[in-house]
Amino acid sequence: MTQERWKNIVEWPLVCAALVFLVAYSVQVIANLNDTQSASLDVVIGITWIAFVADYIMMLLLARSRLRWFFTNIHELAILALPMLRPLRLLRLVTLIRVLHRTAGNALRGRIVTYVLSAAVLLTYCGALAVLDAEENAPGANIVMFWDALWWALTTITTVGYGDHYPITATGRVVAGALMISGIGVLGVVTASVASWLVEHVSAEAAAAIETQEEPLRAEIRSLTAQIENLSAKIESLAEQGSVN
Amino acid sequence: MTQERWKNIVEWPLVCAALVFLVAYSVQVIANLNDTQSASLDVVIGITWIAFVADYIMMLLLARSRLRWFFTNIHELAILALPMLRPLRLLRLVTLIRVLHRTAGNALRGRIVTYVLSAAVLLTYCGALAVLDAEENAPGANIVMFWDALWWALTTITTVGYGDHYPITATGRVVAGALMISGIGVLGVVTASVASWLVEHVSAEAAAAIETQEEPLRAEIRSLTAQIENLSAKIESLAEQGSVN
Amino acid sequence: MTQERWKNIVEWPLVCAALVFLVAYSVQVIANLNDTQSASLDVVIGITWIAFVADYIMMLLLARSRLRWFFTNIHELAILALPMLRPLRLLRLVTLIRVLHRTAGNALRGRIVTYVLSAAVLLTYCGALAVLDAEENAPGANIVMFWDALWWALTTITTVGYGDHYPITATGRVVAGALMISGIGVLGVVTASVASWLVEHVSAEAAAAIETQEEPLRAEIRSLTAQIENLSAKIESLAEQGSVN
Amino acid sequence: MTQERWKNIVEWPLVCAALVFLVAYSVQVIANLNDTQSASLDVVIGITWIAFVADYIMMLLLARSRLRWFFTNIHELAILALPMLRPLRLLRLVTLIRVLHRTAGNALRGRIVTYVLSAAVLLTYCGALAVLDAEENAPGANIVMFWDALWWALTTITTVGYGDHYPITATGRVVAGALMISGIGVLGVVTASVASWLVEHVSAEAAAAIETQEEPLRAEIRSLTAQIENLSAKIESLAEQGSVN
Repeated sequence: MTQERWKNIVEWPLVCAALVFLVAYSVQVIANLNDTQSASLDVVIGITWIAFVADYIMMLLLARSRLRWFFTNIHELAILALPMLRPLRLLRLVTLIRVLHRTAGNALRGRIVTYVLSAAVLLTYCGALAVLDAEENAPGANIVMFWDALWWALTTITTVGYGDHYPITATGRVVAGALMISGIGVLGVVTASVASWLVEHVSAEAAAAIETQEEPLRAEIRSLTAQIENLSAKIESLAEQGSVN
Repeated sequence: MTQERWKNIVEWPLVCAALVFLVAYSVQVIANLNDTQSASLDVVIGITWIAFVADYIMMLLLARSRLRWFFTNIHELAILALPMLRPLRLLRLVTLIRVLHRTAGNALRGRIVTYVLSAAVLLTYCGALAVLDAEENAPGANIVMFWDALWWALTTITTVGYGDHYPITATGRVVAGALMISGIGVLGVVTASVASWLVEHVSAEAAAAIETQEEPLRAEIRSLTAQIENLSAKIESLAEQGSVN
Repeated sequence: MTQERWKNIVEWPLVCAALVFLVAYSVQVIANLNDTQSASLDVVIGITWIAFVADYIMMLLLARSRLRWFFTNIHELAILALPMLRPLRLLRLVTLIRVLHRTAGNALRGRIVTYVLSAAVLLTYCGALAVLDAEENAPGANIVMFWDALWWALTTITTVGYGDHYPITATGRVVAGALMISGIGVLGVVTASVASWLVEHVSAEAAAAIETQEEPLRAEIRSLTAQIENLSAKIESLAEQGSVN
Repeated sequence: MTQERWKNIVEWPLVCAALVFLVAYSVQVIANLNDTQSASLDVVIGITWIAFVADYIMMLLLARSRLRWFFTNIHELAILALPMLRPLRLLRLVTLIRVLHRTAGNALRGRIVTYVLSAAVLLTYCGALAVLDAEENAPGANIVMFWDALWWALTTITTVGYGDHYPITATGRVVAGALMISGIGVLGVVTASVASWLVEHVSAEAAAAIETQEEPLRAEIRSLTAQIENLSAKIESLAEQGSVN
């Protein structure tokens, strides 16, 4: 079995695992749970983790060059092994957007915009979760409620940055960095799409102009064809005359 | 009667209702009114609300598939039913910009830029109103005067975000989110318009280059025509010779 | 004399008056002056003001339709009459950039970028001056030194907005608004120029592609020409044969 | 020897000197060193400084017009002579990015994006170092740890600007200004690249459209060729008839 086939088979199961992880992780981070509840959610998260580990091991075994795959996918190992990078498992959900899109057959630009905006919404939510997870137990932190975390994520991804809430832990700042960079990306895609739309319409006008330019050329070739047809007829009659003679 | 005809008929009345609502709402939010004054403004706002509700009911009745229209326009119901979403009724004024534009027959880019900038100004004003409405009675809020609200709206839509004023209520933050996203949109349209303008001029040069490129092609076809005319004349004389013979 | 001739004549004198005003205004705002020094600077500023007023009167007198010119240039009157709008007289210096540019004959994009960047630098400096003028005597203001004002202007025009310094007076906030909007404009022009440069290079490749596409067309026409020449020669010989016969 | 040859010879040695300077400078700024350690690092930094001075002198001596080179490169002298501008020596590392790129032969857009992103990362790190160097001993400063400096640099280059940390010294603010302007540049390049990519695909479609437009033209020319071949054959047979006659 190749990696590609394996990927096709486990695409949906892994998206489901990521969704389950998202819900369990959200509940664990947002709600104030007692130890029993928290432990049962840890079991659920553990199961999704096992699913991701199983996928990792299969991918490693199916790789054409295992050593090479191991080193080019070292970040996958880090996400699975380090508890601090746990929220990054949610990146698997970006695949979900891709899957949903495959069903729709829109135009290039529309597809990109939808994709980026969906990713921005997902990122804002996951960023809020991840920052809350990192900050809520840090002494002196000012992001301790989910509602504040979501507000902070929004001000960050739009690069507004009021500064009424900001992360103070290392993990929180890494998450913030990811959101800021995404924000620049989103801005870039939005601007680029408008620009491309405007240029396309200008380009359509340019194409019409070229069409107009070529009109005389075509007329000339058409008259040329007519002239040759005329000439052909004349020679035909000449030939007949010749045979008569 | 179809929905389209109804829309055309009530377009101006609804814009007027939205304008009346804007003025009454502005006065109610900004000014410190006594109970009698506030009550009389509530009556005015109530009348505009009835106009919007009447429009909603007519649209629902005139819809080809009422159930489908109901679900695809669920947000219209929410705006009318929930007092919290009251400021969103001002969105009707965006129609006003569209109506004003219809009279002018400008070029595509100019029209888009004017439209977006007008919308940005309207949005800043309405955002300031809505945030003030949400914040002015919240304990611990720092946006309690209209002037501060307007300043805050400006720093938000330009994504500057000093953080000297910021919303703390849920409604205020939703309004802030709308302003931030609009800010990114405005930035995108401004940039895209400049880019498109620059590209158009480059594109004009490219069109001129194509024109130049095609010049030899045309010259060749022209010489071809001349040659064939020449040939034709020669055959003509040959034919005459033939008949003489 | 027409308005255009008058404009050409007074262009340089008015730029000089604006420069003198800039220096005098800068000294007055930045330095802590005693009353005698401040009074002598007021005289200098007064003289430049008289120059601007004289220009305004001449323009009004030379206008084809004075009433129309008066209303379409109502902002000029406001700038001259209202002391609060004094810093806007520095806008005349933008003309200076235009004059300097006229000497250079660069390409379109380079010219726009230089123009916008010069305007941004001028605007940052003038914005800092104007905000300092408005804020330095306001109670509770946090922009009271020129160095802070310049720093604030920079964080504002780049839309960073730390919030360590921010205006609290009406004039200061209007200046801030102008700087923010300029910042969005600068960002737009920078982005658009890079985009246009990239697109131009892509477009050059596209033009080369069209060139390649048309190559077979040309080859075909060339072979057509050869064939007809061939045919022509054949008929020529046929005609000679005919005459011999 | 010309300046160009000298540049080629010393390119790698100078990049090494800049790297050594980067490491020594990083350690000196970040770590709390005792006097002996600090002194030994000063020696290392002094050696790299001598290398830069030697390069400066050679460039001056090899210049075609030494006086002109001196004045057009006055900033190089300032960087070497003023201790305050010390961090700017790290700009030499930008050359490193260029060198690394020369080995790869990617497409224009990819090359620009990689270059700008590498420069942004380098700038964020160097900006954090430089600001920490300027601020860490200033009274009342709020950037006194490297981790905070890096976080501040990130919020600045992305134009988020929370305002939880900000520079208060002159050098720190100059560094901040450089980071803000770079941030605008990075945003511009990212947006422009996406826009150019989108436009290129639209442009490819336009090229395909032109191709389609020219199809009838080609068909006509093809039929013209066929007709002339036909005519030619007829005349050929006529000529043979003629000779037989």
